[in-house]
Amino acid sequence: MSRPSEQSPAGGFRARLHTVIFEADTPAGKAFDVALLWVIVFSVAAVMLESVASVRVRYATALSVAEWAFTIIFALEYVLRLVAVRRPLDYMRSFFGVVDLMAILPSFLSVIFPGAQTLLVIRVLRLLRVFRVLKLGHLLGQAEVLMTALRASRAKITVFLGVVLSIAVIMGALMYMVEGERHGFDSIPRSMYWAIVTMTTVGFGDITPKTVLGQFIASVLMIMGYGILAVPTGIVSVELAKASHVSLDTQACPGCGKQGHDLDARYCKACGTVLDWAVSRSESR
Amino acid sequence: MSRPSEQSPAGGFRARLHTVIFEADTPAGKAFDVALLWVIVFSVAAVMLESVASVRVRYATALSVAEWAFTIIFALEYVLRLVAVRRPLDYMRSFFGVVDLMAILPSFLSVIFPGAQTLLVIRVLRLLRVFRVLKLGHLLGQAEVLMTALRASRAKITVFLGVVLSIAVIMGALMYMVEGERHGFDSIPRSMYWAIVTMTTVGFGDITPKTVLGQFIASVLMIMGYGILAVPTGIVSVELAKASHVSLDTQACPGCGKQGHDLDARYCKACGTVLDWAVSRSESR
Amino acid sequence: MSRPSEQSPAGGFRARLHTVIFEADTPAGKAFDVALLWVIVFSVAAVMLESVASVRVRYATALSVAEWAFTIIFALEYVLRLVAVRRPLDYMRSFFGVVDLMAILPSFLSVIFPGAQTLLVIRVLRLLRVFRVLKLGHLLGQAEVLMTALRASRAKITVFLGVVLSIAVIMGALMYMVEGERHGFDSIPRSMYWAIVTMTTVGFGDITPKTVLGQFIASVLMIMGYGILAVPTGIVSVELAKASHVSLDTQACPGCGKQGHDLDARYCKACGTVLDWAVSRSESR
Amino acid sequence: MSRPSEQSPAGGFRARLHTVIFEADTPAGKAFDVALLWVIVFSVAAVMLESVASVRVRYATALSVAEWAFTIIFALEYVLRLVAVRRPLDYMRSFFGVVDLMAILPSFLSVIFPGAQTLLVIRVLRLLRVFRVLKLGHLLGQAEVLMTALRASRAKITVFLGVVLSIAVIMGALMYMVEGERHGFDSIPRSMYWAIVTMTTVGFGDITPKTVLGQFIASVLMIMGYGILAVPTGIVSVELAKASHVSLDTQACPGCGKQGHDLDARYCKACGTVLDWAVSRSESR
Repeated sequence: MSRPSEQSPAGGFRARLHTVIFEADTPAGKAFDVALLWVIVFSVAAVMLESVASVRVRYATALSVAEWAFTIIFALEYVLRLVAVRRPLDYMRSFFGVVDLMAILPSFLSVIFPGAQTLLVIRVLRLLRVFRVLKLGHLLGQAEVLMTALRASRAKITVFLGVVLSIAVIMGALMYMVEGERHGFDSIPRSMYWAIVTMTTVGFGDITPKTVLGQFIASVLMIMGYGILAVPTGIVSVELAKASHVSLDTQACPGCGKQGHDLDARYCKACGTVLDWAVSRSESR
Repeated sequence: MSRPSEQSPAGGFRARLHTVIFEADTPAGKAFDVALLWVIVFSVAAVMLESVASVRVRYATALSVAEWAFTIIFALEYVLRLVAVRRPLDYMRSFFGVVDLMAILPSFLSVIFPGAQTLLVIRVLRLLRVFRVLKLGHLLGQAEVLMTALRASRAKITVFLGVVLSIAVIMGALMYMVEGERHGFDSIPRSMYWAIVTMTTVGFGDITPKTVLGQFIASVLMIMGYGILAVPTGIVSVELAKASHVSLDTQACPGCGKQGHDLDARYCKACGTVLDWAVSRSESR
Repeated sequence: MSRPSEQSPAGGFRARLHTVIFEADTPAGKAFDVALLWVIVFSVAAVMLESVASVRVRYATALSVAEWAFTIIFALEYVLRLVAVRRPLDYMRSFFGVVDLMAILPSFLSVIFPGAQTLLVIRVLRLLRVFRVLKLGHLLGQAEVLMTALRASRAKITVFLGVVLSIAVIMGALMYMVEGERHGFDSIPRSMYWAIVTMTTVGFGDITPKTVLGQFIASVLMIMGYGILAVPTGIVSVELAKASHVSLDTQACPGCGKQGHDLDARYCKACGTVLDWAVSRSESR
Repeated sequence: MSRPSEQSPAGGFRARLHTVIFEADTPAGKAFDVALLWVIVFSVAAVMLESVASVRVRYATALSVAEWAFTIIFALEYVLRLVAVRRPLDYMRSFFGVVDLMAILPSFLSVIFPGAQTLLVIRVLRLLRVFRVLKLGHLLGQAEVLMTALRASRAKITVFLGVVLSIAVIMGALMYMVEGERHGFDSIPRSMYWAIVTMTTVGFGDITPKTVLGQFIASVLMIMGYGILAVPTGIVSVELAKASHVSLDTQACPGCGKQGHDLDARYCKACGTVLDWAVSRSESR
């Protein structure tokens, strides 16, 4: 995310600001991140507490004060971020730019539109800002392994979701026929909801089959569903096993064009050519 | 599924039709598949919406018109398919031939037998037609890996299902004795339904043990069941691992002793030495 | 299970009987097994149907006749088994000997003690006899892989069960304190039942936390429990992976005493000595 | 835990006491451990029984006597432990020192503060003392494999927990908006409790979505949650696989080309040829 800041005198302040706000390898940058983390956590906690009726009534003033304090802090931070980056519009349109704006907008909007109070729940999305900070933390490597594993399984997971949805549709229609409206299966969409509740082994029990045939179909669905849902676990296990072994390097060999070299490879495993990007990389460290 | 169509003048039109309808590697074939996919999805959505009581009452006419439009499209497509293949009877008796027929029959039957309205739910099976189209898509490879994994585990899964069913029968009979009709366990089949609900960790809660002994047996069943149900996950994981060949070579380079080369590596990635065991291996094949 | 029957004239009939009843590699033996399998399945189905109140009332006579027919068949089979084996007492005291006796006893006991009607449910244990027959089937190999995997994990599973039970006791006591009798947690054993229902992700919902603190503890237990219950799945996966690769051979090399050779090994992998038991085995096939 | 006790005449009694109480490799030490194990189990069972209202009323005296007997035994043991160790303060401040004290304190405190009766549930923590004894048992190795697997996954599990909590917060806020107080989602914390109940597939069913939109979001959460929760299983599987070294050599024999040799194989198991890569590997180490 951080690009090398140029040393021109004009950009000196901006560069230093950028280092503090966007990076975490200086003491000031680290302190800023930790402070921001706590403000985010407290602001989300305040939103959560405000949703509890008894707390909302008793501590109305305190919560309102806290909310405006958080909003002002986030607004200030947002302005600083706009100043710190060279292309503010690019930042504003980026994912985290939108998240940062959404952290301050609801409070201001609630003044203009008093009826939009319930939309204040959107403030809980401030939590997403935590990930911006954590991204700079030491957990990055682990998160990347997990993400790589999930991304590599994307195609398999798509097939899997298609099969799960198809079974939900067909089983839902079947149960709608067999059990009918008397037993809570009052439409195919609702029956599909039941089928997903059953297949994922959640089993709320708000809708349950009452007829013998319905209970038999449900039994089949449960056992079948369990087998099917073993698939994502298997997929993730295998991909995790791969991700914790194999390389993420996407560079091609200059000699033969072969890809898939390990991160520590210095010679092409197919033709023995020196992988110069590997050498330059280890020198740049 | 697609066989090379011969270039005789008589079969020219049929061959071109076959290419469009049954194959997907020409622009026309691809467009046909995508269009068909959307018609299927909309027709299934219409069936689902029709099952919602409030929608059915308000949009009765619109749904009826849509239904007949879909039926006519599918009927037309069915006729075209019959024309396009060389042995129509073989097609009609194939799995997808029957599915294609079932997509149009219910609507026509509902005119002849007005009482068969509820059987229109069968129309939801149109969804199966999606798989015919997807079969030609880019997800085929992934689906095949999953299918191979499941097929390879067939014998293990049969043993597993036998054990699960036996435990369900025996635990069901036990709970029928212990809890009895007062607490909802009013027959062995119903107790078996409860045992499966419990073992698969679905846990609807429509039937629950009330006595101390019953709750103890249920606890044993839950923990036991969890262990047993770890088996399909394990089976699928292992088969998936096999199917996607997660193996890293554990041989050491004769030049520098470095380990962890890929199976297809012919040169050491650390020092560039020829990996002679790799050469000898490929020669011995 | 089958030992080579000697060819003495006296034991000729018994040997032939043994071949039919206990073995499955002759046509007669196979036919006997298949017939027995169906009788067992029907007799268990009859017990299950008898437990359904409406069926019991309407088909009382038919069920009674069927029950006695099954009892007589099993009794006859039991006598034949006693005749066929050389040491009847050993057979009677074996696991399957007891199961075979339990298949016929309940019916006879119900004549002597009319009050023991409910104990007839024991007849459902006839189902266990299926495993005797299946043991001779082609699924044996797969079952053995599964059993080997489970047996190899025994020590790990014991540790795991100990941890699960300890968490159940401590969490149960905690919830008993926090939620108390008003919310259904009316004793530590019942709270333990709830903790197991929650940890195994069954979640009946017959007892649920109502206080904020109770729901917080429950949330911790659920997430913690899910992590803990990932352990048996992991254990079984790993053992299955091992079991489907590695040898079950327990023979030691005659040259160096090394154990752990694969089933298809003909030379000791440690010292190169010819494994003569391997040679003799492949010759005996 | 046990350090070699010096042979000075002054420390002779203490050393012998230490051997009996803290170690398990002498007959006396083993007998002490087994006896202690049973006392712990019985004392925990007594606490559990006391929590059952009907038992508490009927066997009040017996339970009180038993409780004091256990307290005296544990107090005596605590004093002996203090005598046996050279630095009693260190022992008192260690984890198991505190657990040992907590095993006797509640009973004494209940005499001084009669109102603290309910706090007697703390006595159930005596169960933790079992682990001190088991630590010396033969299950240590297996427990260590499990602990190693879990510890190695710590960073991944932290990331995972962060993601699960974030989803719970955001989904909880969403459902609080969509379903509202009428359907039981009466605050964000309670909605988060519901989200965790749903994501972990526990599904109590005490709070369930009633609106169509709520049921749709719940369906998405369930399927998404299932995928996410496949992650810990995958993590544990992979770490367990690593911890128990499931690797088979994939090298081919230079003599016959046979693959699948164990990592420690030095001769081809099929033809007896020296596996030179194995030799060169062991030399290069």
